[in-house]
Amino acid sequence: MQVNNKHYRSVWAEKNAVIIINQQKLPFEFELLRLTTLDEVIEAIKTLKVRGAPAIGIAAAWAMWLESYNNGTIHETAYQKLIHCRPTAVNLKRGADAVFLDFLTHSHGAEQLWQTAQNFADSEIEACKLIGQHGYKLLEQIYRTKQQTLNILTHCNAGWLACGDYGTALAPVFEAHRNGLPLHVWVDETRPLNQGSRLTAWELANEQIPFDIISDNSGALLMMQKMVDAVLVGADRIVKNGDVANKIGTYQKALAAREHHVPFWVAAPLTTFDFSVENGMQIPIEQRHGNELQLVSGMYQQQRIEIALFPNTFPSVNHAFDITPASFVNAYITEKGVVENIKTLV
Amino acid sequence: MQVNNKHYRSVWAEKNAVIIINQQKLPFEFELLRLTTLDEVIEAIKTLKVRGAPAIGIAAAWAMWLESYNNGTIHETAYQKLIHCRPTAVNLKRGADAVFLDFLTHSHGAEQLWQTAQNFADSEIEACKLIGQHGYKLLEQIYRTKQQTLNILTHCNAGWLACGDYGTALAPVFEAHRNGLPLHVWVDETRPLNQGSRLTAWELANEQIPFDIISDNSGALLMMQKMVDAVLVGADRIVKNGDVANKIGTYQKALAAREHHVPFWVAAPLTTFDFSVENGMQIPIEQRHGNELQLVSGMYQQQRIEIALFPNTFPSVNHAFDITPASFVNAYITEKGVVENIKTLV
Repeated sequence: MQVNNKHYRSVWAEKNAVIIINQQKLPFEFELLRLTTLDEVIEAIKTLKVRGAPAIGIAAAWAMWLESYNNGTIHETAYQKLIHCRPTAVNLKRGADAVFLDFLTHSHGAEQLWQTAQNFADSEIEACKLIGQHGYKLLEQIYRTKQQTLNILTHCNAGWLACGDYGTALAPVFEAHRNGLPLHVWVDETRPLNQGSRLTAWELANEQIPFDIISDNSGALLMMQKMVDAVLVGADRIVKNGDVANKIGTYQKALAAREHHVPFWVAAPLTTFDFSVENGMQIPIEQRHGNELQLVSGMYQQQRIEIALFPNTFPSVNHAFDITPASFVNAYITEKGVVENIKTLV
Repeated sequence: MQVNNKHYRSVWAEKNAVIIINQQKLPFEFELLRLTTLDEVIEAIKTLKVRGAPAIGIAAAWAMWLESYNNGTIHETAYQKLIHCRPTAVNLKRGADAVFLDFLTHSHGAEQLWQTAQNFADSEIEACKLIGQHGYKLLEQIYRTKQQTLNILTHCNAGWLACGDYGTALAPVFEAHRNGLPLHVWVDETRPLNQGSRLTAWELANEQIPFDIISDNSGALLMMQKMVDAVLVGADRIVKNGDVANKIGTYQKALAAREHHVPFWVAAPLTTFDFSVENGMQIPIEQRHGNELQLVSGMYQQQRIEIALFPNTFPSVNHAFDITPASFVNAYITEKGVVENIKTLV
């Protein structure tokens, strides 16, 4: 996508480094980070400088290449450290596998592994582009009946930052906007890390798509008031029975959508599907540090600082993801098209 | 309740002023504010220095007295200005009416109106005490089966700060704790103004009741994981068909509770019931300024400051309340006891 009239991916590689847009600093600063070791990539993934299931998959592919570039080989321990640095999104493993299996199978060197990682990234991004085109058709269908501005609700950030380019949940929104379909997006701020109000809002503002940031508490009321035409979210892992792991709070939106007959769509490339896991109860849910709830970062007198919302003596619990059962999902949007029933994909 | 071994109400009156605990400053500072005019009380209500349906009802009663004390009379315009300063909670009108009707009917002077306001406050607080006792029986019932620590989820602050004393939703929790019933509270942080992580957490910490602050996004996952035994919330208005207006986000918890067979209880004094309104769709829902989402207040280097979470060019929409349909409510806890069906109260 464009930032200040220049095309960017959110993660890419040069000859000797992986470059990421530092998602921690947005929307106030647009900063590029140059990562030159596997450990630096792992640190960036853990601290959410690069985040979003497809984007961390791409970063993982580049991390495996970096390891080979720096050390002339890739040890199993390096691979294991990488794929376990965040537990929920399966894309992380997919990206690491793409390069590591190529290394194991063909003993390829860094130069060839660079191309393997690049192919993986290109293929993920092509998938997102197709998700945009397929998802757009769903929006168009609703618009044909409504003939008025569509109100789309989204949670967290499943835009181009989260995916390298295009996005998953936001790809159909971008595509619809480009095609002149009038829409407005309700952006869940997405506590505790505000990926909605920081990243999704920034992406929509850049594309001049109308939106409003709302509290995560608001969606069900808006659906009751018939102010939401569809809920569109991404995913961190979709398993064999169709259950979806995604950012904490997704399930609450699914509950509200079902109650108010609002379509609930999950957009994800096939690399997010993990048919080795039977159902959502078996997906590991990352529990992050409670200080993500206690401390919040923002701007004060032109400086980015972090303030405490409550004393650090108050305990807190911070689950990063939840599970939305398959029965709540009206459609999965993938690069292969739109499917209503997961069984057609298994 | 006790603060540093001294008993406090959250709002009371002296001979020539209304005193409130400034709820904006908690949990970092315990500040008392002295209000000496009707306009100062209105300003404190609008800016949430005093908040919570029962507490603003009590503040409204004292505000009417102050007007009489300062001006020797109470004009209809003063009454109207007061009762319309926040639209959703009906308690505001109840408190103002208690004093204003006494003035209109008996032409009472300030001295007698002081007593009327005091009686109103005492009666509200006695109602909360009884809510605690009745609600405790519900908790005890669950405990008899479970025989393990109960996990109670609450949204916003419906504790003693919100009510003058005791609380509504938290009154049964305090009562249970005093009676030795082991419990733990999941405290929704309650965006955008964090009444949960600031006020409810502070109240529970003062009483040494175990709790964890969670994001508003977490409740449904915890219910899915069978980590919630009951949801207990307060109310701003309960209407004839049993629909409940309460802090935005309440309805999302009700949806999750029903899905996971978790009892959903609404605790409120009878002054919160408004049988002149047929159903929830007719309750006015306050829409507050979007900057409550954009700006957040907290501590930085021993100072309370306000930071921006996103640029003020990003638009936001901030509904302060939502409606939970009666069908989601398993019990209403009032001073008269526990009722499952609103019709027994109408």
